[in-house]
Amino acid sequence: MPLIRISLRAGKPAGYARAIADNVYEALRETFNVPAHDFFATISEHDQNDFIYDREYFNIARTDDLVFIQMTVSNTRTVEQKKALYRRIVERLAKGPGLRPQDVFINLVEVAKENWSFGLGEAQYA
Amino acid sequence: MPLIRISLRAGKPAGYARAIADNVYEALRETFNVPAHDFFATISEHDQNDFIYDREYFNIARTDDLVFIQMTVSNTRTVEQKKALYRRIVERLAKGPGLRPQDVFINLVEVAKENWSFGLGEAQYA
Amino acid sequence: MPLIRISLRAGKPAGYARAIADNVYEALRETFNVPAHDFFATISEHDQNDFIYDREYFNIARTDDLVFIQMTVSNTRTVEQKKALYRRIVERLAKGPGLRPQDVFINLVEVAKENWSFGLGEAQYA
Repeated sequence: MPLIRISLRAGKPAGYARAIADNVYEALRETFNVPAHDFFATISEHDQNDFIYDREYFNIARTDDLVFIQMTVSNTRTVEQKKALYRRIVERLAKGPGLRPQDVFINLVEVAKENWSFGLGEAQYA
Repeated sequence: MPLIRISLRAGKPAGYARAIADNVYEALRETFNVPAHDFFATISEHDQNDFIYDREYFNIARTDDLVFIQMTVSNTRTVEQKKALYRRIVERLAKGPGLRPQDVFINLVEVAKENWSFGLGEAQYA
Repeated sequence: MPLIRISLRAGKPAGYARAIADNVYEALRETFNVPAHDFFATISEHDQNDFIYDREYFNIARTDDLVFIQMTVSNTRTVEQKKALYRRIVERLAKGPGLRPQDVFINLVEVAKENWSFGLGEAQYA
């Protein structure tokens, strides 16, 4: 059920953004009880002028490799699960495609279970 | 008040995505009591690498024609209205531009009524 | 903490969209108690076919200069703060880059404080 929106600077090699998406999905599987095959994502690449971030907020040294990972999810997870998700995403992205932990920005948007239709015009989770 | 975000694969003919947006708006009019003229939408086209979906989740056979329709709406609708919206969107998109019901993915993000400004710096719904 | 998503028609001069983002950030600082350096935004430019708006809803005369400003923020502000934010954004954008108040569309998406990670896999606000 997550709908994953990944935003990053343009210019990365083929497969780079896909590796981010794949690992975010695996982290969701591991920490949010997301079912197998529940993988839906868009990737948006931005030029320098259209991708704005602060290089030091919270004393975190960000670079142009920064990735925004915004996920819409059902509102059924605990704070502990959210913390575990963030940790696991960062761990996974450090390995593939090789992102610094400082360059991973995550945000969750929560919605009710009946706010999803995965096809056929049905509210599969309602 | 809905802000409609439509994401799909690039390469469709002129008017195709607009037909999707028009029919989503009409379905909102029919099921969510959206006023006439309340029509605001963006369309984002993605290359294959930047548009990720599962071809079988929930036993729904999706194709590259899949469309993500994510709508931010006020939190004033019932579950029955949401179900009616999903059904109506799928019915309408089957006619124009001619989408398979399996290829329509819908998500609602709900917000408070005071979270909108339609111009002039005013909170028109507050 | 806000994640700012700015959508507008393509074709503006260099620095135009950046001026919008900068002033939205300053307005957030002034009305939402956003800390210094808490500035993260993406800008998406759309062709005519992919940017849909009504030219008269709420009797507001919009033009192709319309900008959608959608911000994900923590759910900690009052209605009065939201109204102040809208007013301040419109005032600022009238000066730079010079937007008509009718052409500023604003939407807030609110999330829990633990829904953010600004890097390092930590939930900094939890």
